Amino acid sequence: MEKEVAIIGVGQTRYGAFPDKGIKELFVEAYLETLKDIEKGMDPKEIQEAWIGTLQTGGNQLGNLAALMTEQVNLPYIPAHREEEACASSSFGFRSAVMAIKSGMRDIVLAGGGEKMTDLPRERNRYWLGVSGDVEWERLAGTNFPGIYALMAMRHMHEHGTKREHLAMVSVKNHRNGVKNPKAQLRFEITLEQVMQAPFFAYPLSLYDLCPVTDGASVIFLCRGDWAKRFTDKPVWVAGVGAGTDYLATHDRKDITRISAAEVAAHEAYQQAGLKPEDIDAAEVHDCFTIAEIIAYEGLGFAKFGEGGKLVESGETEIGGRIPVNASGGLKSKGHPIGATGTGQICEIVHQLRGDVVTPERQVKGAEVGLCHNVGGSGGTCGITILNI
Amino acid sequence: MEKEVAIIGVGQTRYGAFPDKGIKELFVEAYLETLKDIEKGMDPKEIQEAWIGTLQTGGNQLGNLAALMTEQVNLPYIPAHREEEACASSSFGFRSAVMAIKSGMRDIVLAGGGEKMTDLPRERNRYWLGVSGDVEWERLAGTNFPGIYALMAMRHMHEHGTKREHLAMVSVKNHRNGVKNPKAQLRFEITLEQVMQAPFFAYPLSLYDLCPVTDGASVIFLCRGDWAKRFTDKPVWVAGVGAGTDYLATHDRKDITRISAAEVAAHEAYQQAGLKPEDIDAAEVHDCFTIAEIIAYEGLGFAKFGEGGKLVESGETEIGGRIPVNASGGLKSKGHPIGATGTGQICEIVHQLRGDVVTPERQVKGAEVGLCHNVGGSGGTCGITILNI
Repeated sequence: MEKEVAIIGVGQTRYGAFPDKGIKELFVEAYLETLKDIEKGMDPKEIQEAWIGTLQTGGNQLGNLAALMTEQVNLPYIPAHREEEACASSSFGFRSAVMAIKSGMRDIVLAGGGEKMTDLPRERNRYWLGVSGDVEWERLAGTNFPGIYALMAMRHMHEHGTKREHLAMVSVKNHRNGVKNPKAQLRFEITLEQVMQAPFFAYPLSLYDLCPVTDGASVIFLCRGDWAKRFTDKPVWVAGVGAGTDYLATHDRKDITRISAAEVAAHEAYQQAGLKPEDIDAAEVHDCFTIAEIIAYEGLGFAKFGEGGKLVESGETEIGGRIPVNASGGLKSKGHPIGATGTGQICEIVHQLRGDVVTPERQVKGAEVGLCHNVGGSGGTCGITILNI
Repeated sequence: MEKEVAIIGVGQTRYGAFPDKGIKELFVEAYLETLKDIEKGMDPKEIQEAWIGTLQTGGNQLGNLAALMTEQVNLPYIPAHREEEACASSSFGFRSAVMAIKSGMRDIVLAGGGEKMTDLPRERNRYWLGVSGDVEWERLAGTNFPGIYALMAMRHMHEHGTKREHLAMVSVKNHRNGVKNPKAQLRFEITLEQVMQAPFFAYPLSLYDLCPVTDGASVIFLCRGDWAKRFTDKPVWVAGVGAGTDYLATHDRKDITRISAAEVAAHEAYQQAGLKPEDIDAAEVHDCFTIAEIIAYEGLGFAKFGEGGKLVESGETEIGGRIPVNASGGLKSKGHPIGATGTGQICEIVHQLRGDVVTPERQVKGAEVGLCHNVGGSGGTCGITILNI
């Protein structure tokens, strides 16, 4: 996919709990930041179509949400798709947007997502999130996402000798990065001891192994490669967009220490890009739970299977290491507004590749190739995006 | 879009109330019929990606539904998108599937949809459907879809002299067609008097001006044009796929006797196809309420604005007329399983163009070009598909 599709602008809200903002306000905020991000400016009327990812958690009680969002940003009439593939919604939508440009049917399109989660009582959120995993065999039997990822973690520890400390190191690293990210939700450092001593949600996962509940939105403008110069001298290129699925119930999967959807998606994205894991300079991965980041390392080829724990321990995924992962703070510290997360990761990598991360301590120096890994449910879906300059 | 994308197989369930079937069973049934429909057979492992439209009405309580559906038909791992644009979900998904093939990223894909509605109590259905229109200004003020379409009908009657009898004629025609469709839900004829004397839901719309609540699923396989011959000697070609949106609240629209989303979508589809309204030999249009069919005639260019009522009165939209509309029975008689409706219309037009409609009385003779018109909400979204042979 050699310079066929360019990213010309990105924007995202702060992630957090914003009682004074609904999904519409959040989306408009991200959209306006994206418009402002376009170096040479753009008439928004040039946007021809939109893909918007959202789980549409019950709180906002608004339907036909993609059309409602484009209406809010004064783009009535253009086709607006709502994509929903659980927590991977906006990376799937981004991929569809790339296809639209590659098809020749569209020249300039919008991909984004948003979620308003904090106006729901915890039980309602648990319901809305819970149905994104397997309902019939897992949720109705009483388990939930912390429980399912705890099973994956236990098996990983049993088979590969991964330790609770390895999980905790993911959390400590991501909080350390998130402190430097003005858009992050949980901006405080934590120590290994704090994670180890925190109350358990589902053994071996403690309070600090889980990402928070978040409000937020993110928006990206894409255009055909040969038009990019009209809008910016620093386009970021889409090198590969992979996607995959897996059985929703973990008992149906080949191996619960792996997420096949991510492996399928990574294979496709690497192939399209003509790149290998060792070519990646910076990555944002879906650390909804700390074990998920360790499994991501392995599925993406950053570590051998079973050796993800050792990779985080080595420090190589720190900023300044061989392959910095979640320099944004990740879902753990930056936050996880479901529908916004996929395109939010892409916003982060675009800043990393353009070298214009607001806080210099968080900048991965000289990064030329970046990767985003966005998982839905407990691994039922995954979208992988590779970008380069 | 000259023979770039072919439809090689179609299938749909019966539409109706099936207490013994869930969304999974319905989807599998439609999928298997599609596989069987492929003249020269196909190894389903050739399917590379899926777009599945569903409003996912609350009854089934299953999330990440696209991945769950592909898992059910033994296609784990392939990317599966859930598209949701209210009642236009699967025509939007079909359009994305067409883009995927035109992009060169995919060769063979699935587009489909499904809905399980009859296991919900009426109030719950009203909630799930109601949020697809404008919530803040219409639904919370107490109106619902019958009320909104009643407003549109009243204004149409006021401005254009459309009569209640014209609305009733749509219903009588579509029931007459539906009787001959073994897949239809309401297989009985009705008379003009019965419609006129039925109890009102929202004046001027009576019980017989409304479509029913329906369970059902539909599935379509598409492939790149140059591969079509491997699977069938009778491919149906995708000539145009248009889509549009509009303000969700009717008070924001330019004219409540028109649906701009449909006009935008029709313009795009006609342009892609290089065709005009008079080239269409058969059409399926979104008659969720009888007035919607009259507005559809006008938006599609089958009648001048304001003259839709006269068109149905002329008999030209009957089977055997100049432009037969809803030979399937339409949403009114065939039924309206939200997510399945868009691709279900495409199934019908494919049979019409191949000349293999099961009941010969329902066959539009010599049809070479067909159109599907699939509206979401009260006109917030619309997808238009033009097919030819």
